[in-house]
Amino acid sequence: MSYILAVDGGGTQCRAAIAALDGTILGRATAGSANMATDPQGAMASVVDAARAALAAGGIAETPLSSIHAYLGLAGANVEPDHSSLIAGLPFRDTRIVEDSVIAVRGALGPNDGVMAVLGTGSVYGGRRDGKMLRAGGWGFVVGDQGSGARLGRALMEQTLLAYDGVVPESELTRSVMRDYGDDPNRIVAFGTTARPADFARYAPLVFEAADRGDAIAMAVVAGAVADVNAALGAIVWDGCQHLCLTGGLAPNYEHRLAETFLRILKPVRGNALAGAVELAVETFASPQA
Amino acid sequence: MSYILAVDGGGTQCRAAIAALDGTILGRATAGSANMATDPQGAMASVVDAARAALAAGGIAETPLSSIHAYLGLAGANVEPDHSSLIAGLPFRDTRIVEDSVIAVRGALGPNDGVMAVLGTGSVYGGRRDGKMLRAGGWGFVVGDQGSGARLGRALMEQTLLAYDGVVPESELTRSVMRDYGDDPNRIVAFGTTARPADFARYAPLVFEAADRGDAIAMAVVAGAVADVNAALGAIVWDGCQHLCLTGGLAPNYEHRLAETFLRILKPVRGNALAGAVELAVETFASPQA
Repeated sequence: MSYILAVDGGGTQCRAAIAALDGTILGRATAGSANMATDPQGAMASVVDAARAALAAGGIAETPLSSIHAYLGLAGANVEPDHSSLIAGLPFRDTRIVEDSVIAVRGALGPNDGVMAVLGTGSVYGGRRDGKMLRAGGWGFVVGDQGSGARLGRALMEQTLLAYDGVVPESELTRSVMRDYGDDPNRIVAFGTTARPADFARYAPLVFEAADRGDAIAMAVVAGAVADVNAALGAIVWDGCQHLCLTGGLAPNYEHRLAETFLRILKPVRGNALAGAVELAVETFASPQA
Repeated sequence: MSYILAVDGGGTQCRAAIAALDGTILGRATAGSANMATDPQGAMASVVDAARAALAAGGIAETPLSSIHAYLGLAGANVEPDHSSLIAGLPFRDTRIVEDSVIAVRGALGPNDGVMAVLGTGSVYGGRRDGKMLRAGGWGFVVGDQGSGARLGRALMEQTLLAYDGVVPESELTRSVMRDYGDDPNRIVAFGTTARPADFARYAPLVFEAADRGDAIAMAVVAGAVADVNAALGAIVWDGCQHLCLTGGLAPNYEHRLAETFLRILKPVRGNALAGAVELAVETFASPQA
């Protein structure tokens, strides 16, 4: 009996599913981080850990790893494209390694061509057109990640300080931020200097809520972010593209704000990256010769 | 015989001048950092070092410190406004401590009311109106310092990555930045993640030069920065203000780009912060009772 191992591996953890050759999931598990850019050997160890745990969760712990077809979507897999020596060190029957964006796009879009936008703490765009993967953004909030939660939060802090200085009119939202920092702009600066993306992004929902209430500063920040997202989509969505989906924590905030041309092709996300890895594993391994 | 000590103290060093009571400078010297926010005792020690060195440079090393009138413009002096115990520990005849912006504004504007904009690696605005000090900006490049070299450099990196992704059209300038980073956007991200303000600011002159050549990206970045500087000036320059001066490394780049209303009142910088400290010291101490 032969099984499929599908893995969605990232910098925080890797998630694994064991499935039958028809894609029916039998067991799931998580293990440690699996980032190929920073620690390829550690990534392989996490994958094997996750495989064993998923087999156990599926009640088939005795299955030899050498009978497993492994399909691994791993962060950073694009950095060093030749994975043959890593694969040779793995215990599986055969192994395919792809970048995590490949399984995320497959999960979100299914087998369709299209584009997905991930709008959360960061922002990144992926897609597939005629079998070719598309990608844009994802450069981090210091010099990129336009429209992300981190950028929205950073913009709110900037506008709050401009309002403090009288450069822009203060709003209910900037007054509330000032109050949170004891009306001391130096405390906002201290926060901003050490804030990680997730710290800034904590403010993003407040910005959207305030924009919905008509707060002028929030509306301006959101308008800038929406323009940035529309511009990025304009670069990756091609004429005739029929499928766009948004994922990430801020997706519900952006959905109804997109330009009409994108709203027309907006479709729900089909599944997550792990589901995409399972689908791709079935396509890759469940042929007569597998 | 009584002398004046004027000090311009900052996070990097403190500069001192010994002058006669009429303001004639007799000796100059520098010593270590004098930041009241981070190390008030160390700042006092640097001031005394600088005083001794300036007396020696003026050939009057034997002058007792207890005969000196000290006027100290020190970074961070606004953080803890009561300086009486620090002053009591100093060896001078009498001591006045003010924020460094006070002496910078006096140096740039002389005894006139007006506004100064410091446009360099960072950006900050100061001024004086009817004896009252004005201040805006200077919050650092993460959430402030609009129009600064650091913000211009960061914006260039952001636009270069957007051009790489096809979100904005590339330009000669973005192509040249990409070449500098081996056409690898990840290297730009790595630079941006660790870059200090001065690292980003190194690109600012290139941005202005490219804008002068008609580079579309550079022109857009400069236009945004000029709009930010005009907005900040709009908040601090009052109706009827007759005196504006720009200082800092980027001042020559902004001078001719300001809004007409600011161009009309633009005047050359009279002197630096140390010269301002000398002038204020003379006003403070060179009266009959001093």
